[in-house]
Amino acid sequence: MVNHRGEEALETLMDTEIDMIRWEGDAARAGRDVVALEEPLEILLNGESLAVTMRTPGNDFALATGFLFAESLIQSAADIQTIDYCGVPGDPNERNLLNVTLQAGDLPAFERARLERNFLATSSCGVCGKANLSAAKCLAPPLPENDFCVRAAVFRELSGQMRAAQSTFDRTGGLHAAGLFTGEGKLLSLREDVGRHNAVDKLIGTEIQAGRVPLNERILMVSGRTSFEIVQKAAMARIPVVCAVSAPSSLAVQLARDLHMTLIGFLRGNTMNVYTRPERIGV
Amino acid sequence: MVNHRGEEALETLMDTEIDMIRWEGDAARAGRDVVALEEPLEILLNGESLAVTMRTPGNDFALATGFLFAESLIQSAADIQTIDYCGVPGDPNERNLLNVTLQAGDLPAFERARLERNFLATSSCGVCGKANLSAAKCLAPPLPENDFCVRAAVFRELSGQMRAAQSTFDRTGGLHAAGLFTGEGKLLSLREDVGRHNAVDKLIGTEIQAGRVPLNERILMVSGRTSFEIVQKAAMARIPVVCAVSAPSSLAVQLARDLHMTLIGFLRGNTMNVYTRPERIGV
Repeated sequence: MVNHRGEEALETLMDTEIDMIRWEGDAARAGRDVVALEEPLEILLNGESLAVTMRTPGNDFALATGFLFAESLIQSAADIQTIDYCGVPGDPNERNLLNVTLQAGDLPAFERARLERNFLATSSCGVCGKANLSAAKCLAPPLPENDFCVRAAVFRELSGQMRAAQSTFDRTGGLHAAGLFTGEGKLLSLREDVGRHNAVDKLIGTEIQAGRVPLNERILMVSGRTSFEIVQKAAMARIPVVCAVSAPSSLAVQLARDLHMTLIGFLRGNTMNVYTRPERIGV
Repeated sequence: MVNHRGEEALETLMDTEIDMIRWEGDAARAGRDVVALEEPLEILLNGESLAVTMRTPGNDFALATGFLFAESLIQSAADIQTIDYCGVPGDPNERNLLNVTLQAGDLPAFERARLERNFLATSSCGVCGKANLSAAKCLAPPLPENDFCVRAAVFRELSGQMRAAQSTFDRTGGLHAAGLFTGEGKLLSLREDVGRHNAVDKLIGTEIQAGRVPLNERILMVSGRTSFEIVQKAAMARIPVVCAVSAPSSLAVQLARDLHMTLIGFLRGNTMNVYTRPERIGV
């Protein structure tokens, strides 16, 4: 089991203040603004480069844990032996390199081949690390049937709670957020990042670190739109209900349908659109 | 020079209608909604898999062209010999595979090595295809000094023009948009996609196809936030002014500063924040 004190003992800035010129109509004046930090994080697995993601610093160990879990490289926190920053001390990138060692030691050859195949040709977000179309599919099996049901009224309260907890967004307006809620609408955890997928990896990674996955009776809420990738990550953690302030993509809907997940979009005020598995919502 | 008639002759759907349940308060009724299409596109270079991106179908040849240009694999459309869909005819993925052949034939060994290094470890959006931190930097040199200057009043008109041209967004609320404008605020081109970076690749790719790059006296506007990657792509096309409805990240500001680009955020109504190179804006 990894020791997280190394990360938690460090102070982490998520935003920074900069100079800017504020225009109102034809009048300009010098001012200051706060912007969300974006820095590259290179994740090494057993000392070998696995991935680089542009992320907002903070919860990096959870981010790496959630990412490895979503990629099916670990099943639980027990599969991780150590996580440590490994940049050169004093270098600006000191905390932008992170090495994960696995309990199992090196990956088996077939797994290395799968990774190489998956990562070789990747260029863009969405199906991160999928090298070809056959690999661009979800690793998760369908969610189990259960009687988890949420009252419609619960969803109306989620956005307000997310917003109240989003301290960095308030200052910068520049961060995506992912929130984890109980079926009664209680906010359990919130993570913010310039990348929506990173916010979800941080959120789920924190739950993995605490041994609380699978998240069978939880609701995931994301601040923006839902893509294939968000549904895929939620499905790996076995979250049955995913909702968002904005629209889903066609593939998000299709994957949610295939995996028996409830997918909600345009959750605003007292209205919402339920795209799949509406039987999990009642009054 | 590539022949684009093959793509343009095809009818392309960018959205699709689906069933959903609409909740208003505690009342639910069946309804229909339109969602933006998201499908994987695998780009092959000389028959070898180069990248998979989750994109909205349409302007795929421009997307591939813009992507190759941003990755510094081509300098102009003349470097491309052919672009063709290469999926199995009749297969659902028929138009989700695309092969680009280069006039120069196979890439030189050092270039293949660079690509492999760059793509090997990529996982996420942002610095797409950058395998390690040293590679996670912009390929573009700083923009040249020139006297390109835009009146502040011009910026107030951009959002309205973008919105008027965004047909698919109106139906789905689920697409990012990138618009290219003259210094007088005339909309020249608009592209939409579920991925912000794809919208920019499509937009710039179209200009490359038409032989109109470098875009020395143009304004790029994006619908969402600005990240490192958006600034990087704009810089490769030599666009001197980039503006957005929402916030920039710290790295977007830093890169824009390093490259002498004017970066504007929070362009709303008659206000905006100018983060870098404010001398390009006047009254």
